[in-house]
Amino acid sequence: MTLTPCTADFLNELSPRLPEGTLRAPAPRFLEEPRGRWQGQAGAVACPSCTEDVATILRAANDARVAVVPYGGGTGLVGGQVAADGASPLVLSLERMRNIRAVHPAENVLIAEAGAILADVQKAAEDAGRLFPLSLASEGSAQIGGLLATNAGGVNVLRYGNARDLVLGLEVVMPDGRIWNGLKRLRKDNTGYDLRHLLIGSEGTLGVITAASLRLFARPARQGAALMVVQNPAAALALLALAQTRLAEGISAFELISGMGLEFLARTMPQVRQPFAAPPEWMVLIDLGLPQGIDPSGALEALFADALDAGFVSDGVIAQNMSQRAEFWSLRESIPEANRHIGAVSSHDISLPLSAVPEFIDRAGPALAGIGEFRVNCFGHLGDGNLHYNVFPTHGRSRADHDHQRDRIKTCVHDLVHDMGGSVSAEHGIGRLKTGDLEKYGDPVKLAAMRAIKHALDPNGIMNPGAVLTDTEMQRE
Amino acid sequence: MTLTPCTADFLNELSPRLPEGTLRAPAPRFLEEPRGRWQGQAGAVACPSCTEDVATILRAANDARVAVVPYGGGTGLVGGQVAADGASPLVLSLERMRNIRAVHPAENVLIAEAGAILADVQKAAEDAGRLFPLSLASEGSAQIGGLLATNAGGVNVLRYGNARDLVLGLEVVMPDGRIWNGLKRLRKDNTGYDLRHLLIGSEGTLGVITAASLRLFARPARQGAALMVVQNPAAALALLALAQTRLAEGISAFELISGMGLEFLARTMPQVRQPFAAPPEWMVLIDLGLPQGIDPSGALEALFADALDAGFVSDGVIAQNMSQRAEFWSLRESIPEANRHIGAVSSHDISLPLSAVPEFIDRAGPALAGIGEFRVNCFGHLGDGNLHYNVFPTHGRSRADHDHQRDRIKTCVHDLVHDMGGSVSAEHGIGRLKTGDLEKYGDPVKLAAMRAIKHALDPNGIMNPGAVLTDTEMQRE
Repeated sequence: MTLTPCTADFLNELSPRLPEGTLRAPAPRFLEEPRGRWQGQAGAVACPSCTEDVATILRAANDARVAVVPYGGGTGLVGGQVAADGASPLVLSLERMRNIRAVHPAENVLIAEAGAILADVQKAAEDAGRLFPLSLASEGSAQIGGLLATNAGGVNVLRYGNARDLVLGLEVVMPDGRIWNGLKRLRKDNTGYDLRHLLIGSEGTLGVITAASLRLFARPARQGAALMVVQNPAAALALLALAQTRLAEGISAFELISGMGLEFLARTMPQVRQPFAAPPEWMVLIDLGLPQGIDPSGALEALFADALDAGFVSDGVIAQNMSQRAEFWSLRESIPEANRHIGAVSSHDISLPLSAVPEFIDRAGPALAGIGEFRVNCFGHLGDGNLHYNVFPTHGRSRADHDHQRDRIKTCVHDLVHDMGGSVSAEHGIGRLKTGDLEKYGDPVKLAAMRAIKHALDPNGIMNPGAVLTDTEMQRE
Repeated sequence: MTLTPCTADFLNELSPRLPEGTLRAPAPRFLEEPRGRWQGQAGAVACPSCTEDVATILRAANDARVAVVPYGGGTGLVGGQVAADGASPLVLSLERMRNIRAVHPAENVLIAEAGAILADVQKAAEDAGRLFPLSLASEGSAQIGGLLATNAGGVNVLRYGNARDLVLGLEVVMPDGRIWNGLKRLRKDNTGYDLRHLLIGSEGTLGVITAASLRLFARPARQGAALMVVQNPAAALALLALAQTRLAEGISAFELISGMGLEFLARTMPQVRQPFAAPPEWMVLIDLGLPQGIDPSGALEALFADALDAGFVSDGVIAQNMSQRAEFWSLRESIPEANRHIGAVSSHDISLPLSAVPEFIDRAGPALAGIGEFRVNCFGHLGDGNLHYNVFPTHGRSRADHDHQRDRIKTCVHDLVHDMGGSVSAEHGIGRLKTGDLEKYGDPVKLAAMRAIKHALDPNGIMNPGAVLTDTEMQRE
């Protein structure tokens, strides 16, 4: 089937059915791919302020076969929100739908519209004495709709799960403009197929999430954090297992930091205070959230003592107060910025079975050395088996010197991840950047089922064409 | 489309492609609906011992348009596993596929085949020093495949989630016999639509789960339990909120027990020791699993003291050891048996937004009184908003006296639940018993999407026809 461009004619016909100001000329920010890989295009940007207007827009687009590209905070790193080719689409920005529709503290539930910014949702939960645990670097601009459409991850997945695990119900406008009123506030509901989880992570290709019923949690009564030096990733995993045996879900985050990351920080952001005089080759940031009646510093001291006895750790520092804890986190969260200063040749958002992580790191270095000389900053959410395995030029060379090697590097890392039972997109999604990876590494039976579902729910293929499943794949089916 | 009966001809053609003994005459146990609502039928029972044989069976059934009814432990309470009408189906029992394929303690992962019995999986996890937290009354016979196909609930959902939340990956034979190899062991994997959650809870209508990669947890270092007397369900919820503020995820279960349940116990199972001299109208069982460094009895005493001050509780008893904790649980788990001795007129597995529970209970009693005189035992997983709201004859009368009122009772309860934003099937599923409820109360847009997905993945409609979506609904689409 062929899509029609989003022309003036289409917009003129749609416009009278919407409040004035809903349809706008596309501002440049809607057409920028955050990593600068390509230039987007759009016939217009629609900024509806209510669900009914989203429905009107999709109904018209579906009737006219005009492509719709849903747009949240624009922070996605795989180009799911920016279409470069094909018939000019209508970009659908949810930014005006940013109400927190309700907070139910007694139920640990909050209902937010798709355009609500993550930090605002966190704040609304905090104001009600509760915690919304989704937390990631872009939380100041990322929107709930986009976070759910991409099933975002972040630093608290170990304890609270991925974005999808924080959702009780959804309101969704389907591709034909019908509204699914699924904003349940229920912890158990076995009435039919779980459309919620199908829409979450479908990256705007099956419908538009307009609101979500989100799970809140009790705020941990006591918090604490420590940085511990480990000899290698295997020791880090042994430390994690020991910590889980002692503290179970009390461990909120378990982040791996490499010596290369610390070196990048020292070089590009010297204002960030480094905890150890000699930067260790590997260390972990352990964050705790504990019930009343247990002292986090004491728990971390006892863990450290046992881990020292077992030979898992060689040094460590335990936060003595909340500002020191914030300092540890600031160190961790400065690493991506230091990476940007250095300039990666190729970045990889991968996950592995937890016990395969050390072997992967052992094998990936030599495999890359077969391509050329690089520096690797391998860091991230070790507790989830999720590494950001980023490859940089050696000191004094630039990323441009390695442009010709980028594809080989990516293939080398992704092949190894796939061979070891891992995922080539742990928390960022497929978008437009990784459709080839999905085709190459995806299970063919799963891919066939995905295409069948896409065709069943969006027979005209108007929803975010080119993302996740490419047109080619649709036609092949 | 029309289905073909599972005839001798079909079986004769299929038989040579399978190991001897795979196809069997249907033993009576495969045709019994556990609540005795109807008599099942089947042309044969297939008992494959490996995934490839399941694939062979589905391929043949799909080619011949023979219906397949997947069968696990047979403990489902909504008739999803027993077909009474339509073309005689092939029952597919997974009971011979009961291997624990692997345990990865360091990863907190266990891979089980569909026929593995829940208690055996719990045991395998325990032997590895880990916890598989799914726990429910039928755990001695329920199988993993059926538990996932129905997204089972149980007593630990408050802390660990529903069955679906315990699954990292699946191996599934699709309706056309192709095998989806999705047994990932990853905590984060954003590569395409989440087929896993679509299959889980689809009650055998979209494919056959043959194995699952399951999440394990650290065993709580310390456990404890208490029974606390509350004035009413609203006080019980206030107690829950207080407990969560103090102990967060340390609360493993929060179960409501009614005075009527205690009366039924005293009457039919006098050997079960009752904790309070005068049976209270309402009480809760609180179960804790805590990290090292915190004493459960102390935590419960402190909680009780605060709750007493706040007026949420009036009496209580805290387990002094593990055997007393087991006694509390035995009391809780004897209630369904006492119910069976009394004989319910109508049982309801419902859930509500947590804060709507008290109002529901307040309104349901008078609504039922408009139909006749009944006794109600309302109990269950209050922490999840999941109540078993079961209606009994008054003392001296029998359920048969009320047969003519059963439909009105069910409608009365379900209408009220639906009006209050609840679910008429919290943890049991739709099966064949509640297809009318799904049609009546389900969101029409969700139902249309479900039908489209069913048709896309099972175009011949061979998978468990009559369950979840009835044939009528398929044709209407």
